[in-house]
Amino acid sequence: MVLDNFRSVISKYDVIFFDAFGVLKTYNGLIPGIENTFTYLRERGKDFYVVTNDASRSPEQLAQSYVNLGVNDVTPDRIISSGMLAREYLDLKVRQGVVAYLGTENSAHYIETSDLKTLSIRQLDLNNVADINALVFLDDEGFDWNTDLTKTLNLLRKRNIPVIVANTDKTYPASRSRVSFAIGALAKMIEDTIGRQFIRFGKPDPQMFIFAYQHIKNYPNVSKKQILMVGDTLQTDILGGNKFGLDTALVLTGNTQAEDAEVRIRATGIIPTYICVSAVVE
Amino acid sequence: MVLDNFRSVISKYDVIFFDAFGVLKTYNGLIPGIENTFTYLRERGKDFYVVTNDASRSPEQLAQSYVNLGVNDVTPDRIISSGMLAREYLDLKVRQGVVAYLGTENSAHYIETSDLKTLSIRQLDLNNVADINALVFLDDEGFDWNTDLTKTLNLLRKRNIPVIVANTDKTYPASRSRVSFAIGALAKMIEDTIGRQFIRFGKPDPQMFIFAYQHIKNYPNVSKKQILMVGDTLQTDILGGNKFGLDTALVLTGNTQAEDAEVRIRATGIIPTYICVSAVVE
Amino acid sequence: MVLDNFRSVISKYDVIFFDAFGVLKTYNGLIPGIENTFTYLRERGKDFYVVTNDASRSPEQLAQSYVNLGVNDVTPDRIISSGMLAREYLDLKVRQGVVAYLGTENSAHYIETSDLKTLSIRQLDLNNVADINALVFLDDEGFDWNTDLTKTLNLLRKRNIPVIVANTDKTYPASRSRVSFAIGALAKMIEDTIGRQFIRFGKPDPQMFIFAYQHIKNYPNVSKKQILMVGDTLQTDILGGNKFGLDTALVLTGNTQAEDAEVRIRATGIIPTYICVSAVVE
Amino acid sequence: MVLDNFRSVISKYDVIFFDAFGVLKTYNGLIPGIENTFTYLRERGKDFYVVTNDASRSPEQLAQSYVNLGVNDVTPDRIISSGMLAREYLDLKVRQGVVAYLGTENSAHYIETSDLKTLSIRQLDLNNVADINALVFLDDEGFDWNTDLTKTLNLLRKRNIPVIVANTDKTYPASRSRVSFAIGALAKMIEDTIGRQFIRFGKPDPQMFIFAYQHIKNYPNVSKKQILMVGDTLQTDILGGNKFGLDTALVLTGNTQAEDAEVRIRATGIIPTYICVSAVVE
Repeated sequence: MVLDNFRSVISKYDVIFFDAFGVLKTYNGLIPGIENTFTYLRERGKDFYVVTNDASRSPEQLAQSYVNLGVNDVTPDRIISSGMLAREYLDLKVRQGVVAYLGTENSAHYIETSDLKTLSIRQLDLNNVADINALVFLDDEGFDWNTDLTKTLNLLRKRNIPVIVANTDKTYPASRSRVSFAIGALAKMIEDTIGRQFIRFGKPDPQMFIFAYQHIKNYPNVSKKQILMVGDTLQTDILGGNKFGLDTALVLTGNTQAEDAEVRIRATGIIPTYICVSAVVE
Repeated sequence: MVLDNFRSVISKYDVIFFDAFGVLKTYNGLIPGIENTFTYLRERGKDFYVVTNDASRSPEQLAQSYVNLGVNDVTPDRIISSGMLAREYLDLKVRQGVVAYLGTENSAHYIETSDLKTLSIRQLDLNNVADINALVFLDDEGFDWNTDLTKTLNLLRKRNIPVIVANTDKTYPASRSRVSFAIGALAKMIEDTIGRQFIRFGKPDPQMFIFAYQHIKNYPNVSKKQILMVGDTLQTDILGGNKFGLDTALVLTGNTQAEDAEVRIRATGIIPTYICVSAVVE
Repeated sequence: MVLDNFRSVISKYDVIFFDAFGVLKTYNGLIPGIENTFTYLRERGKDFYVVTNDASRSPEQLAQSYVNLGVNDVTPDRIISSGMLAREYLDLKVRQGVVAYLGTENSAHYIETSDLKTLSIRQLDLNNVADINALVFLDDEGFDWNTDLTKTLNLLRKRNIPVIVANTDKTYPASRSRVSFAIGALAKMIEDTIGRQFIRFGKPDPQMFIFAYQHIKNYPNVSKKQILMVGDTLQTDILGGNKFGLDTALVLTGNTQAEDAEVRIRATGIIPTYICVSAVVE
Repeated sequence: MVLDNFRSVISKYDVIFFDAFGVLKTYNGLIPGIENTFTYLRERGKDFYVVTNDASRSPEQLAQSYVNLGVNDVTPDRIISSGMLAREYLDLKVRQGVVAYLGTENSAHYIETSDLKTLSIRQLDLNNVADINALVFLDDEGFDWNTDLTKTLNLLRKRNIPVIVANTDKTYPASRSRVSFAIGALAKMIEDTIGRQFIRFGKPDPQMFIFAYQHIKNYPNVSKKQILMVGDTLQTDILGGNKFGLDTALVLTGNTQAEDAEVRIRATGIIPTYICVSAVVE
């Protein structure tokens, strides 16, 4: 496996899309040295965006989490989350009534509008569901799985409504040696059980990439050839980037370990343009 | 759709296999009139067995539940459960050490032997898993889903051990209008997430039918042509019975409603030999 | 099931996306009366596009097929095909070398460029595959399935290259009572067998809809709320349109028959904004 | 990875089940030295059976193929094939009329009885299908895939009949460096397309193992603990053997190569009792 130098790789592109978890940060803070990368991008005037499967918080709250870690470069306008797509869907297609959700109040706050109320499945009364017009899976926290997943299943048996999964990931790292289920896994269990087709947002889906593409400062005067997608996960970041027509760089600081990279690329047929040790510019 | 008379159907067979839920009983007691069926079977000297995807209790406890409902015919030796197959697997293939489980203490009691200890995932310490030799999914009750499903996922990341799913059903009816998740759905979520192949017991798997077949009083002097499988679910009872070479009767008192039966048979290609209103002999 | 009048439905939108097969035409010519729809669109100055999972021919050839049927409104610039996405992918991501393909010479002609040669799997020598940089599934015709699907499987065992499926449909109607396999079904068989992840283009994938969206004459000065997607298939046209944020109209002249529409909408959870008998303006 | 000595492994068991392809023979003849194993079994009076996913020929013809290679120990009564299960199914459940099939005439000859006629899909007239009572997938050879797979799909749209897949394998090795599609892959494509549930016979299904178990000379006086399953494929031989309660030995002369064995066992969670270089007794 030939490793590419990250500095020379990004020097060839005008815009960089970064995955967040496993690329810029982990469960216990920033990837060491990643500040250098932001400095490099700033000095060279390169544009960049964080493209993340995350519907647990608003872009403002996500940006604040970087400020809390000492990084001021990741401003809210540079964050593209799958939660933003869920919100756009509701704006375009649901518009009014009540949206039931699984997640924290924090996650729900972001999708609420003057015309569209939100209601936690926790608080849902199954005998009173006539005004529920959609269901959104936002976050794996904020509810009791035993009670509320069962309630969700029964809601869907009563109401044939659009179901939106705002983060398709199945797990996320919770510590050095442990993972947690992400909301995507819980949504999949209900989808399989009820046999209906949910509407899923998040990488590798191209809608995520077009959404990021349209947020680029110089859009539409940037060609796809000038953009690099940097990620740690073959099935989301690299597959999605490739399919959208972007060059892609796999980094080895997250889901894909150095010792597995070659085997996984061969097994999946998902081929990154580059492989780099990390997204740190040294 | 031509409906067959249940009395004339079972008169042609020497041995009857019954599914339990949706055929003999429901969430609120016996199917009305099912006592007549037991009387008929007793008077005609026909042999019968209850073949059930259930690992929540021992055959003795399951039999007691019929006694509590006023039926004395369903003795423990007439009950064939997927939990019995899980226990046989552990006897043959695991033999010693500790088996972790998801379920109630009641369900675990049944698989415990002098050489094989059981440990609830509730009580499992993830830092001390070296002596866990197998994991069994027994029941959807008896544990906290948020905490313990996550613990289970992390146990499997640490230990490559056999995983047994003792009931493959995805849901069960909890009341007239509500369903609950069965342990099979939770197991499937973890299987999909971890990407490993679990060992699953329960209809439609033929191992369930051969197990029942071998428990028949006159075995091996009964041909498969003399046995009828009676069930309410196409994908488990009817598919499994057909594949094992038995004639099959679909009844309309449980998962398959009269108005859906024809559509579902056409859609799935799972074709029962007979369709009857219920398993009640009138 | 309440049926909507197609004329009043499309009067509310500025841009109409039509699926081709089952909406504008069938195996034996135009949908009777569909000429009225084109007249209506022309007279009202409404913009429209044909958005089709088809990689068997170029937009020019597809447009010519409408001219041959007596319709001059469907000009090449109004045709958006999944084959165009495959071609864009090759332009962006493969660029040079040889692309092996399954399909007719006609289908291959369209993806060939000065830098990118095409080679039919028919003519491929499995001992000489070093310069094959990609594989594209274009059409179910033009090759011998016994020989060439097996050759394709072995090519992929030798070369870990991007594999593009330029039409994800599984079947298409071949006559009043018969269907044929589309290339998407053959591709899926090979993908399942080899265990790798192919790159698939075609509805319901949002990339197809964004591609169409960007081809609109007044783009980007058209909001998604002004666009209607008209299709005969829930899983491609309606699901994809909904997810992209468009209003959708299901018509009953193709894959979805009037007697099945309600059952299928309930079973799949894919809910069109409108249901119309056909796309004919009367 | 600790390798076990095959001689000491089989010395502990009274009955050995062998997979055929990749264990006893390959595309170009016997595994070198495998004659020693048969000599050993004969001298020690150990019972053995060949348990194979193969419906292309009768046990007599399969046995003859060993005689042709110079081995006389593999008599017809020692061969248990998935084709035998398909035949038993037809005997029990179809009984009369016409069975359509995909495969060679050779494969069909075996399932034909005085009451049950067979008809190749090649010769089927789609306008005359009223007496077709079942469809069987037997072999990947003997028909034209372009024409006859399409005909099969249309037959199933006209007739809701039981569909039997008599070999669930997806590929088989055709030479040192090439594989061919097995009939199981073609059947899966049609099953996915039509959305119905086919009846599948072959390892890892327990019905295959119980069928073999009941053919043992001393049955039922042999416990499962006295039987060893020897195979080259984790997903069929080892998974199926384990689930049925047998000890299992993985050999490295076929589908699982020495360099991949550990990774695959970890990835799949399918754990053989032993790993041996080959099934040759040295």
